[in-house]
Amino acid sequence: MIEDKNQQRTQLSDLGEFGLIDHLTKNFKINHKSTVKGIGDDAAVLDFKNKKIVVTTDLLVEGVHFDLSYMPLKHLGYKAVIVNLSDVYAMNASASQITVSIAVSNRFPLEALEDLYAGIETAAKIYNIDVVGGDTTSSNKGLLISVTAIGEVDSDKVVYRNGAKPNDLLVVSGDLGAAYMGLQILEREKEVYKVNPNNQPDLESYTYIIERQLKPEARKDIVKLLEDLKVKPTSMIDISDGLSSEIIHLCKQSEVGCDLYEDKIPLDPQVISTCEEFNIDSTTVALNGGEDYELLFTISQEDYLKIKANPSLSVIGHIKEQKEGLHLVTRTDTKIPIKAQGWKNFND
Amino acid sequence: MIEDKNQQRTQLSDLGEFGLIDHLTKNFKINHKSTVKGIGDDAAVLDFKNKKIVVTTDLLVEGVHFDLSYMPLKHLGYKAVIVNLSDVYAMNASASQITVSIAVSNRFPLEALEDLYAGIETAAKIYNIDVVGGDTTSSNKGLLISVTAIGEVDSDKVVYRNGAKPNDLLVVSGDLGAAYMGLQILEREKEVYKVNPNNQPDLESYTYIIERQLKPEARKDIVKLLEDLKVKPTSMIDISDGLSSEIIHLCKQSEVGCDLYEDKIPLDPQVISTCEEFNIDSTTVALNGGEDYELLFTISQEDYLKIKANPSLSVIGHIKEQKEGLHLVTRTDTKIPIKAQGWKNFND
Repeated sequence: MIEDKNQQRTQLSDLGEFGLIDHLTKNFKINHKSTVKGIGDDAAVLDFKNKKIVVTTDLLVEGVHFDLSYMPLKHLGYKAVIVNLSDVYAMNASASQITVSIAVSNRFPLEALEDLYAGIETAAKIYNIDVVGGDTTSSNKGLLISVTAIGEVDSDKVVYRNGAKPNDLLVVSGDLGAAYMGLQILEREKEVYKVNPNNQPDLESYTYIIERQLKPEARKDIVKLLEDLKVKPTSMIDISDGLSSEIIHLCKQSEVGCDLYEDKIPLDPQVISTCEEFNIDSTTVALNGGEDYELLFTISQEDYLKIKANPSLSVIGHIKEQKEGLHLVTRTDTKIPIKAQGWKNFND
Repeated sequence: MIEDKNQQRTQLSDLGEFGLIDHLTKNFKINHKSTVKGIGDDAAVLDFKNKKIVVTTDLLVEGVHFDLSYMPLKHLGYKAVIVNLSDVYAMNASASQITVSIAVSNRFPLEALEDLYAGIETAAKIYNIDVVGGDTTSSNKGLLISVTAIGEVDSDKVVYRNGAKPNDLLVVSGDLGAAYMGLQILEREKEVYKVNPNNQPDLESYTYIIERQLKPEARKDIVKLLEDLKVKPTSMIDISDGLSSEIIHLCKQSEVGCDLYEDKIPLDPQVISTCEEFNIDSTTVALNGGEDYELLFTISQEDYLKIKANPSLSVIGHIKEQKEGLHLVTRTDTKIPIKAQGWKNFND
């Protein structure tokens, strides 16, 4: 699998905390006017004038959220930023700053952390985010990354989870289930590698799904697209735990029900073929896989024509009265209640 | 030592992530007008109108920053909030919101996390802070807490580390070294307990220093006091890593030197007596101990009379030109260069 080719090893203890932070963050540039003071004081100072501020935070834990035997550290740094930006975009906001804290054991040399921060820097550059603070400490075991993302939004633009109304259309960006199937491929290749380290895996037919797992993107473009189309969603959430889990959140907070149409769920051909190979139902994967970081939102029916032809958006269902419940309408026109599976880390 | 008397054990896996978050945060109330939306969406939404925003974050890792054999979880939750608020106050800002993320292994029952969150809730109540978000996940080993604190400050009130000028006075709140000596007592009692679990320790003469270690406070009152006295510090930092380390930060960023007077460093009588008992130099403890969470700041000489009589504040030195360097002036009037020791976690 992907190996660490980096031969140089500098012990973290050679730098100490302050040297380490200085070293890792020396390339970070400040681009936003709203960043008055970034790294280097007791706290960052930000100035959003009259805009509302959006704050979200996520923890990524080695062995729970990522496996370094197939997740390169640079990708991990990138992904740690993305999962947080995704939450900012899900508020219909624009992301502007992050803080990044890491706890890391002595088994990691400085060069490993440089890779991690290179990924953070790349994400910050691509998404135009200032890194304004953080904390770096040692851990007894493994690596943990905690990112807090901050964004801004005009008062009249913010979109919550609780605004969906009966007859609204349920819309999703991109396609679903790919990150989960990418993980299945990586897990399989890890087992193959354990048995025969010289085996060269042929991953050509899985490139898209592996990239969706290792280097997901956050849908900043969709927030921009909706603004350009003059569509303000009535509710929105990002898909981190799987479509069914997110639909349940959205309907619960909006006090509505919904019908979700199985045949409308967008799937990439690689997801379909890999599901066939693994003998897994692709709808189950889309509903429960998670880590897609697509946006799920509802729009008023009158906005339908504005989004209809857009290749990035799929209408997958519609909102109903709460008493009618949440259902998946299958290809055979059967109605099945939607149940959350999603997150089960504590069962490990 | 302090034992967990709580006999009830509810497995975390019985609740799942969402159930756990709901359960732990159900008592949290929103008090600030600036909190538009707290826990429950993809992100919190805040509104500070025209004020500047202050953001800071800290990680606390079991086995590195705390030892649960003598740190009750409720105290730990309290302390995790305090260490972050301290950074907000060090900007001369008022703290208003926090996010709290935890990674926790299955060895902790729900009741343990309830204790942790009770401490968080107590700190939030006392310091008037809204808990507006967070993340809860499993870890492979131990407990880790990541807190991000957010505050607000008028543009003309914010105080950075870099504003100290030659002839300014160096001032510190409260007293120093107590948290470190409290830790020495707790470590000693832990060793005694290992040898003889039935030994009942007599900690009466150490109550202050133990409390400073287990239940530190952040100096919100000093920010208020300075405002009442109409004193705006020229620079400020909080003392988390020890006086010498913080003086070095402050002087480096302000491009100045300083003279620090050994006989002016405020020490509690319990620190002095415990240092004698341990045969440690109390000045060394004050300089390098850390975790005091007092505020270190500089003021213009003309503000001296305003703070002179105040029992919460001690003038401990004055700022000099950068070329004159940083020195401790000892009781015998010898000048010793100030060197950082502070944080050495990566050497563990």
